[in-house]
Parts: sequence; C-alpha cells; structure tokens
Amino acid sequence: MSETFSFTLEAADSQSQARAGRISTPHGSFDTPVFMPVGTQGSVKALTQSSLEEAGAGIILGNTYHLYLRPGHLTINQLGGLHSFASWERAILTDSGGYQVFSLGDLRKLSEEGVEFQSHLDGSRHVLTPERSMEIQAALGSDIVMVFDECTPYPATRDEALRSLELTERWARRSKAHLTKLHSDPNQLASLGIRIVNPGQALFGINQGSMFLDLRERSLEGLIEMGFDGYAIGGLSVGEDKSAMFEVVSHIAPRMPGDRPRYLMGVGTPEDIVEAVAMGIDMFDCVMPTRNARNGQLFTRRGRLNITNARYKDDARPIDEQCECAVCARYSRAYLRHLSTSGEIVGAILRSHHNVAFYLDTMRRMRQAIQLGTFNEFHNTFLRDLARGQD
Amino acid sequence: MSETFSFTLEAADSQSQARAGRISTPHGSFDTPVFMPVGTQGSVKALTQSSLEEAGAGIILGNTYHLYLRPGHLTINQLGGLHSFASWERAILTDSGGYQVFSLGDLRKLSEEGVEFQSHLDGSRHVLTPERSMEIQAALGSDIVMVFDECTPYPATRDEALRSLELTERWARRSKAHLTKLHSDPNQLASLGIRIVNPGQALFGINQGSMFLDLRERSLEGLIEMGFDGYAIGGLSVGEDKSAMFEVVSHIAPRMPGDRPRYLMGVGTPEDIVEAVAMGIDMFDCVMPTRNARNGQLFTRRGRLNITNARYKDDARPIDEQCECAVCARYSRAYLRHLSTSGEIVGAILRSHHNVAFYLDTMRRMRQAIQLGTFNEFHNTFLRDLARGQD
Repeated sequence: MSETFSFTLEAADSQSQARAGRISTPHGSFDTPVFMPVGTQGSVKALTQSSLEEAGAGIILGNTYHLYLRPGHLTINQLGGLHSFASWERAILTDSGGYQVFSLGDLRKLSEEGVEFQSHLDGSRHVLTPERSMEIQAALGSDIVMVFDECTPYPATRDEALRSLELTERWARRSKAHLTKLHSDPNQLASLGIRIVNPGQALFGINQGSMFLDLRERSLEGLIEMGFDGYAIGGLSVGEDKSAMFEVVSHIAPRMPGDRPRYLMGVGTPEDIVEAVAMGIDMFDCVMPTRNARNGQLFTRRGRLNITNARYKDDARPIDEQCECAVCARYSRAYLRHLSTSGEIVGAILRSHHNVAFYLDTMRRMRQAIQLGTFNEFHNTFLRDLARGQD
Repeated sequence: MSETFSFTLEAADSQSQARAGRISTPHGSFDTPVFMPVGTQGSVKALTQSSLEEAGAGIILGNTYHLYLRPGHLTINQLGGLHSFASWERAILTDSGGYQVFSLGDLRKLSEEGVEFQSHLDGSRHVLTPERSMEIQAALGSDIVMVFDECTPYPATRDEALRSLELTERWARRSKAHLTKLHSDPNQLASLGIRIVNPGQALFGINQGSMFLDLRERSLEGLIEMGFDGYAIGGLSVGEDKSAMFEVVSHIAPRMPGDRPRYLMGVGTPEDIVEAVAMGIDMFDCVMPTRNARNGQLFTRRGRLNITNARYKDDARPIDEQCECAVCARYSRAYLRHLSTSGEIVGAILRSHHNVAFYLDTMRRMRQAIQLGTFNEFHNTFLRDLARGQD
C-alpha cells in the first residue's frame, strides 16, 4: 500500500457544477464521477471479482453491519482484512453500519451512546456506537471509512431533524476522534484483536438535516469545522419525492468543500446520477443495477427493458446496441430471455454484469464530456435517448 | 465450420485399456479422455461461457428434451442454431431426449413408434420418436447427435432387457436413416422449418442390455453392423451397484470399435471416471460437478469437502492446494465458506468453476499419464490421495 488518500480535481464544467477528478487510495486510484457497486457481504451479488475488474470497477462498497455479524470483522482481520479476504485489491469503501441498524425498526433501541440492536440472522444482541463502528471498519481495513450517523427517518419534523443532526454531529466527532486514536495506538488495536490495519484509511463525514435546507447547511458547517477527507449526503432516497431530493442536493452540493470528494449515498437511477453529477456530486453507490438485474430489468441508453418480456423471444440484438460490455459483445436478448424464463443462474450473472457495466460506462461518458466541455450536450442527449424508449 | 467429425487415437496404455486421443468436430477439436459439462438448458449451471472456456472445456452437452420444450428447437434454429444462440463456438453434443422423457414416469406412454409425453413445464402433450429426435437435433445443429434410445429401467428381467434393447436397436436404425435423409434433403429440412444445419454432424449409437453381459454384447454387435461415428454405453448409473456398473463397462468397453470414441453416459465421480478410463472409455458427462457445487460440495485431490463446514471458517488455504484453477488461484476456503453461509450467488459461481475445472484437469492429467506411459502410477496415486482425505 503505497499511497494515502487524495482527491485531485481535473476539470469542471462551465455550465453546471459537474466535475471530473481522480481519487487515490492505498488500493489504487479511480476516476470521478465514480459509481461504487455494492458488495454487501463482501461480494457484489452475482458478480465475481474478475467480472467487476473486467467491467472497470475501481472501488466497491462493503457493509459494516453485515460483515460484522458474518463472518465477523476479527475473522476478516485475521485473514488479512477485507481486501485480502475477498481477494479484491482495488479500493473499498465501508459504510458505518448505521443505515442497516436503523432499518431494523423494532429490533433496535437508540441512545446517546449508540444503538442496541438484535441481529436479523439469529436475534443476538449487539451495540453499535461510533467507537465500535470505527473499530469494525479499522479491522476491515477499507480505504474509505464512513462516520457513524443516524439516518434521519423520513418524514421528520424540523425538531426531529434538528435533534437527529445534532446527534449525528456528536457521533461524527466521536468517530473521528476514535479512528484517529486507533491509528495512533498499536496497543489499543492489539487489545481489540486487530492485527492488521490500513494506515491510509480516509474518513468521510455525513450531512443530515432531512429536507430542511437550513439544517442541511448547519450540518455541513459542523462537519467542515471538524474536517474530513470527503463529505457525503445522507438521509436521501428514503421515500421522499425526487424533487425534494434534488432540492437538497442542488442546495448542498455546491456548498461542500470543492477540494474534497462529494458522495451522494444510495442514489440511484442512471438519470438521477446524471442529474446529481450536474449538481456537483462525485461519488455514488446503489444496489439498483444488481438488484434489478436479478429481477430481469436491464438498463440501456434507451431506458429500461424487462428481458422476460415475450417480445424478446426472437430478438437477436444485444441488450444495448451501443454498449461495449462483455455481455452485449456476446449474447442476444433472445438467449438472455431464455436464461431468465428458465431460471438459470447464468442469466442473473450476465444481467448483473451488463447493468453494472452500463452504470460504469455512464460514469466514464460523463467524465469524458466534462473534460471535453460537452457535459451539457451529453446531459440533454442522455435524457432524450432514455425518453425515446426501446425500438 | 471447416472440419467434419473424426477421432484420432494418439496413445494407448500398455497395462490397461486407457487411451488418449483427439476428436475433431465442425466446432473445433478436443483431447480425450474428455469430460463434457452438462448445459441442460443451453447454459452450464452457474458458469458463463467465458468461464467454461477459461477452465478449458472443449465440448459441452445440451439436452434435447429441455431445449425442445423451451425455447423450442425452431426458435434456436432461427437464431443460427445452438452454438450461435448460446454463443458457444466450441463443440456441442446433444442427447436424444429419451432419458429425460423416460424419467417422466406416469407422464409418458411408450409404443413402437416412440414416446408420448406431457411437458413437465405446462402439461402439454408431445410425441418424441427417433425421427422427431433427429429433426430436433438437426435444428439445434450440435456436433454430436445421439440416437433415440430407450434407457432400460433398472432393475429389469432378462426378457425386459431383451425387449428394450431390441426396441433401441430398431430406433437406432430409424435414427440413422432419418438423420442421413435430413442431411441429404434440403426440401424436407425447409418443410420442417429448419433453415440452418451443421453438415458435419456425427451420430453416436447407444449400447443397452441392462446388467446382462450377453445382451450388452448382442446390442453392441447390432450397433456396429449399422455403423456409427461413436458408441455410447447407456442404461448405467441408474441405481445399480458400482460393481455391477463396472462389470458391464469392463466387459463392453474393450469390445467397442477401437477406432471410434467410446462414451459412458452420465458417469460419474472423479474416481468412477478414472476407473472407466482404465477400462477404455474416452468420453464422459455428468451433472455432479455443477450440482454438488451448488450444494457446497467441492472436489479435491484429497477427496470431497463441504465448504459450509465450520472447520473452514478461518482456513486461508485454497480449496485444493495443487489446483491451478482461477478460483484456487484467488480465493480462500474461508471466503468461500462465507459466501456459502451467506447464500451469495458468487459462491455458487466459484464452487461450480472449481469443480468443473477439477474434472477437466483430472482428464488432462490422465491423458498426460497415458501419453507418458505412467497411467498405472497416476491411477494408484489418484485413488490413494482421494482416500487420504482432507488435512
């Protein structure tokens, strides 16, 4: 691991907030805007590591909650950390576990200290705190660590949103202090059973504040004061209207430090991502390309198609005639439909590969347009083609 | 498609009946002894075509029954035949559909003409005859076509076995006559809706006779009189003891024409295959490597292991330390166990890849030993290592 974390801004669009850059991590560099496929349990569903490499993924996301419960962060650490465990030598971002824990509903109990919750696997009781989340993420050895935050439930009153963001702010401070301490105190690591660390771990803060723009601003100011390697927008894509989401993104993104990566968590469709890039976002993650693939839904330049549809029975064309992915280079819609109606695992593999490759290719095309000064044109063409639909 | 079908014998073991050879087809050549992964529905379960190529598969098997019912042989023919449909440019063998139809039990009715059966998918009624099976396989365009036979039920009395093999003999004659006619009569093909054919299709006869050696001999004589491009042993691995199976194989294999490939259908474990190679068999197919992989069972030089076992939780070693497959080169038992206990699709992909690669590698090692004159040593070492079990 030769590099520490850094972000270089390479180009900025003159007609929007869109930016092209490059992030370096202890496990290699990747271009931004970037899409991070979600590898919840240390594996991106239906995609092998070599398939992800072939599609051009430079960073994937791992879920702290899932990996903590199974196989356990110390098991992973003993096996060399998450990169070594999963044999993925490119970059990894881990979430804090907060989002999953809050999704447990009645199975969790919130306090100033943290969250007590019951495992969805076996009902066993656990406590996740900012400190514990940092310890788990230190053991996993990811390149980008996320602070432990409360993902404010939606809808929230102004008071609820305020209380929540204040808690997130205190937790962000505790997260940063503890991760710093861990990295400077080998004895503490040893006492926790952590044998191997990634000394170049970066830490990202998470902006909350629900749909209240002044609270979003206040949250951001607090984070900037603490100082993080990157800044994320959390608490969106949780049930609100698209217009409400973009109101927050368009307001907050340009206020985030320009010399740090900006990450919109859990978003979204290809068109959402293009919109958010135009607003100045650099990083994205979403389960949509892989989850929808398993259900037969494929993303194309001309919108989505459901491959199980009978209209594709004799269709010799690839999923997307302009796509250069390994699946579009080799297989017809007719064959993919057959695999889907036959319930073959290979169908899920090929569909997932195409969807992730489509997302990654969309990011590359955006980046290129930003660098060429043609992002506005790309943006318009992209949305127009999507609206045209399939032939 | 430049070549027609041929078999070249390259080496014969002096201490056993084992042989090394090479089969050429219109879709490339491959070495024997050969293992053919089973691609029931035009896809080897959990393995993409590029994964099969990487593992070194030179030929796969397709199931006529399944492909006839879904997506339909004419749909596949319209899309260029099975090679083009599945984007698999190496060789394909198709079975006759007989075995699957007989497995339907109460859903089928046997007559001299053929078999009337109900689809396991929707209950629709169909008739499969020798002529129909040849038409379907001609439409699929496989490189090796199997005659339509009755897989004699086990156990069978001598009279039952005799009646069954006589029927199989008449059906073999009808199969050969009809495939020959199809390949010489473009008008008939056109009237059947078959647009594209593989003019180099080879036809294999199938030996029956249950466990009665004299009936097996009689069946073989009938087939040889008719003349086929290769000869298969059917009706084994259907519930009989291993000793009964090998009694038939060891008796019949050396009596099969030495200048044609010998194919033992549906067999078996790695040790079964090594035994059968020693008895002079050249070709094998079996769902075991892929089916067992999906259930967590992995084949190694030291016997089988079930990767879900807790003993592998911290095991940083590959599945098989001597294996050179892409999975053993990259992943630990601990990671594979995690994927298995987490129910990740990638686990099924990696397990299937290893098992098929292990089978293919076993074939390569046998072939090399036959060529070097060390097959007897290989045979003993292979069985001894299997018996040692895991560390």
